[in-house]
Amino acid sequence: MFLRNCWYAAGFSDDFGHALTARTFLGEAVVIYRTEKGAPIALEDRCAHRRLPLSMGRLDGDRVECAYHGLVYDHSGACIKIPGQTSVPQGARVRAYPVLDRHTYLWIWMGNPRLADPALIPDFSAIDTAGERTSRIRLHLRCNYLLTVDNLLDLSHLAYVHATTTGSPALAEEAVVKVVRVGDAVLIKRWQRNIDPSPTFQQFGGFKGRVNLWQVSEYRAPCYIRVSYGSCDADVPVHEDDDIWSHGAWGFKVLHGLIPETERTTHQFRTVTIHPSQASAAAIAEFKRQCDLIINEDREVFAIQQEALDADPRGLSAWDLRSTATIGADQGLIQARRLLRQRLDAETALPAAASA
Amino acid sequence: MFLRNCWYAAGFSDDFGHALTARTFLGEAVVIYRTEKGAPIALEDRCAHRRLPLSMGRLDGDRVECAYHGLVYDHSGACIKIPGQTSVPQGARVRAYPVLDRHTYLWIWMGNPRLADPALIPDFSAIDTAGERTSRIRLHLRCNYLLTVDNLLDLSHLAYVHATTTGSPALAEEAVVKVVRVGDAVLIKRWQRNIDPSPTFQQFGGFKGRVNLWQVSEYRAPCYIRVSYGSCDADVPVHEDDDIWSHGAWGFKVLHGLIPETERTTHQFRTVTIHPSQASAAAIAEFKRQCDLIINEDREVFAIQQEALDADPRGLSAWDLRSTATIGADQGLIQARRLLRQRLDAETALPAAASA
Amino acid sequence: MFLRNCWYAAGFSDDFGHALTARTFLGEAVVIYRTEKGAPIALEDRCAHRRLPLSMGRLDGDRVECAYHGLVYDHSGACIKIPGQTSVPQGARVRAYPVLDRHTYLWIWMGNPRLADPALIPDFSAIDTAGERTSRIRLHLRCNYLLTVDNLLDLSHLAYVHATTTGSPALAEEAVVKVVRVGDAVLIKRWQRNIDPSPTFQQFGGFKGRVNLWQVSEYRAPCYIRVSYGSCDADVPVHEDDDIWSHGAWGFKVLHGLIPETERTTHQFRTVTIHPSQASAAAIAEFKRQCDLIINEDREVFAIQQEALDADPRGLSAWDLRSTATIGADQGLIQARRLLRQRLDAETALPAAASA
Repeated sequence: MFLRNCWYAAGFSDDFGHALTARTFLGEAVVIYRTEKGAPIALEDRCAHRRLPLSMGRLDGDRVECAYHGLVYDHSGACIKIPGQTSVPQGARVRAYPVLDRHTYLWIWMGNPRLADPALIPDFSAIDTAGERTSRIRLHLRCNYLLTVDNLLDLSHLAYVHATTTGSPALAEEAVVKVVRVGDAVLIKRWQRNIDPSPTFQQFGGFKGRVNLWQVSEYRAPCYIRVSYGSCDADVPVHEDDDIWSHGAWGFKVLHGLIPETERTTHQFRTVTIHPSQASAAAIAEFKRQCDLIINEDREVFAIQQEALDADPRGLSAWDLRSTATIGADQGLIQARRLLRQRLDAETALPAAASA
Repeated sequence: MFLRNCWYAAGFSDDFGHALTARTFLGEAVVIYRTEKGAPIALEDRCAHRRLPLSMGRLDGDRVECAYHGLVYDHSGACIKIPGQTSVPQGARVRAYPVLDRHTYLWIWMGNPRLADPALIPDFSAIDTAGERTSRIRLHLRCNYLLTVDNLLDLSHLAYVHATTTGSPALAEEAVVKVVRVGDAVLIKRWQRNIDPSPTFQQFGGFKGRVNLWQVSEYRAPCYIRVSYGSCDADVPVHEDDDIWSHGAWGFKVLHGLIPETERTTHQFRTVTIHPSQASAAAIAEFKRQCDLIINEDREVFAIQQEALDADPRGLSAWDLRSTATIGADQGLIQARRLLRQRLDAETALPAAASA
Repeated sequence: MFLRNCWYAAGFSDDFGHALTARTFLGEAVVIYRTEKGAPIALEDRCAHRRLPLSMGRLDGDRVECAYHGLVYDHSGACIKIPGQTSVPQGARVRAYPVLDRHTYLWIWMGNPRLADPALIPDFSAIDTAGERTSRIRLHLRCNYLLTVDNLLDLSHLAYVHATTTGSPALAEEAVVKVVRVGDAVLIKRWQRNIDPSPTFQQFGGFKGRVNLWQVSEYRAPCYIRVSYGSCDADVPVHEDDDIWSHGAWGFKVLHGLIPETERTTHQFRTVTIHPSQASAAAIAEFKRQCDLIINEDREVFAIQQEALDADPRGLSAWDLRSTATIGADQGLIQARRLLRQRLDAETALPAAASA
């Protein structure tokens, strides 16, 4: 069960060129390519005739020719040629999905195309404006996307999963956590004041003594997540709504674009941005290495959680928090799931014409 | 859902000797061997006692001894010895399937043995009489057998799948197609007149200019297919019912024996015959290479089509032409499926005694 | 469908130390470890919070810390710490399973802990007292455990599966078999008098001529099996109730602890004991090699039987003896299954409070 009437990150914009690229999104086969002028196109990846993936075929200019019997489709998904006959039957077409480039990502709309308003694309402009992109990574996750959302909205896990880099016991034990609903977003603000810096912050922030450390996770349904990590000397009067790059603080912003591949697999496209004034080229190389280590530590956790859900004789899914203990740090993700559930319910209630 | 009361190609005759060979046909485990005198035997490949495959056991003369507790079966499937006891209980037997050799193939009857009339074996005598067998190949296909039948009854795909050998655009675009029902067979005749020869025909036919090219596919239910490929100079007055080896035409005949392994896998046994006067030994080696290339190109298409069907959230099977566009070139396979469906319906309507 | 209120062999005692070890028993994920003082502990291997296996975490003294968010559990399965909060909610716990060491095995109780009476552990004391343990082996079987029970209760299979070691045709063909029910056990006694010794007995017993050979299988539900193998000169007046090590007989005792992993996989822990007076060190090394060969021959049979059951279009399980021939040698296992079925029925009839 996926939200359909929303934009999902299909990848980074430069993942796609004038070539047929096959993907599975929300359980559906999609072929993506750019026209000769660079416009992105996304079509159902199944020929309407014998269901061979169009991605096995070839581009003829901006048109797609099927590899089996040569049917040709234009960028709207309409079949415009069937070899050996002069007319094309009504209904010979494949589905076309709205796609567009923004903030270095390619966004795709898997629901009703008439509702695909570009203004609904989430604000990832920190990538465009904030500075250097230090760690762009594509991951194939062996889990339902909700497990990844859960992870990013409860950053107490840094203390355990990422203890060699961004984590330390104080992050779980001494955090003051505030959860706020702001419009259609849930914000989870975690503050640890006057603690020893965890390894990554120590190394790159160059602190002499104790610090304030904070993380702000911002969630929008279904799976847009922006997280800011900040740090400054313990005696700097930093306020929770300040930008991380004020007051001489050291920190970085992380943007996560997720798209479900299936109920049990997910694509994740992550970008970390750091302010150019805050790191030498050498430091950035090492920082990037740590970012990649961290996300692969999480990836392993997700796969094992999904295996545990799948092996459960009761048939649990990632939606099930039944029979698990709820802890204080779950408040953010509980609100996020409530918000997502409302969106899903609203979509299910749509007239068929609007939701199809 | 498979037709049972019919002969299927179980393999080539010389695939089986005086040794136990395990196969799965129509979802059933079968063990095949030849007696010391060479007669083929096919039995259920499960001991009646603890279901170990008999193919794990050993031949004792013409009898099969189970590898687990030593039960012995004769060639009729009757258990004739149980170690440690003097009598064999009623009903201790495994199923025996009629099998016989003809036209270099071994044929098996998976339905009611009393209906197994050898006269129903399809006419593959072109192998016995027509000339040199240039390319005999055994393939394990990861698809339902219907996808292979579809392929062989719409040869417009030569233009796309086999463009480097037997295909060229003209084969799809300039063909005149006639579909005829002759008794229990469907014939699909494709003629392309006055075209440039496609690479294989150019290479072996030695043509100087434009040619006539034709293909005749002949289908009988459930999955016997014979295809003739012919070519001659464009000005030779060749008629559609002529044999391909008349009028100095160059061509070959292809015979396909298929047997479903499961709903999603198929065994294919193909023989290509070419008239000995039409090719030197060197040419035959190269021609054989092209034949094997072609059938492996198709094999890849089938596997991907089956994956596409299996991945479809609507649960499509190879029977489903729903939601796909029908094109003119489908006329032959639509008639073939209708014929197969009639046979299946007739078999389902049989009194239980006759169909069991 | 497994019997739950009984002790199962979880492994050998020395398989488990002061480290977290993951296992699956009866389809449930279990983590096993020993306290610093060596007491065995078995807990549900899923954190109550986000279901990560606790076996991914770490031991902190005798407590287990989850690798994801740092929840800490004591040896009773109670969560005693949640980082960042001062109280632990009611119900934050994982299941604890009774475990204890006896006769070199670790035993686990998967049912109602209040019924876990150590007196119900089967008598494997032959290991403690009888002599040298020559072949201790751990096996992962790709089959339902019933197929293994069947195997050990019909030793006519020695003649076929183990013909190069403990078997010879006479073991199947000349055996006198008695099946006796003694309390909650089924005994199957097989005697072959005045036969040529099979290879293993010939080699280690040092016989000059014909021998008496016997095997006694003793079964208790659900899957405790002890087998004695004996041999002596044909003219020694040995009686069926004598211990195998009397009368100068040569033989060995085999104890099998089984525990279902899933419906289709099983753990097997086998110990062979031989009397120290009966074998040199060199002989024991070779005898051990033969024991390991034998059990791996059986293991291959089980996997193929299970595949045959799984592939059957009728959906057979290891419980199904339908449609298979029953032979005389099956009498023992038929009684054993009846006994197991009675235990299962009794357990199902328990009040919910007692069976949960």
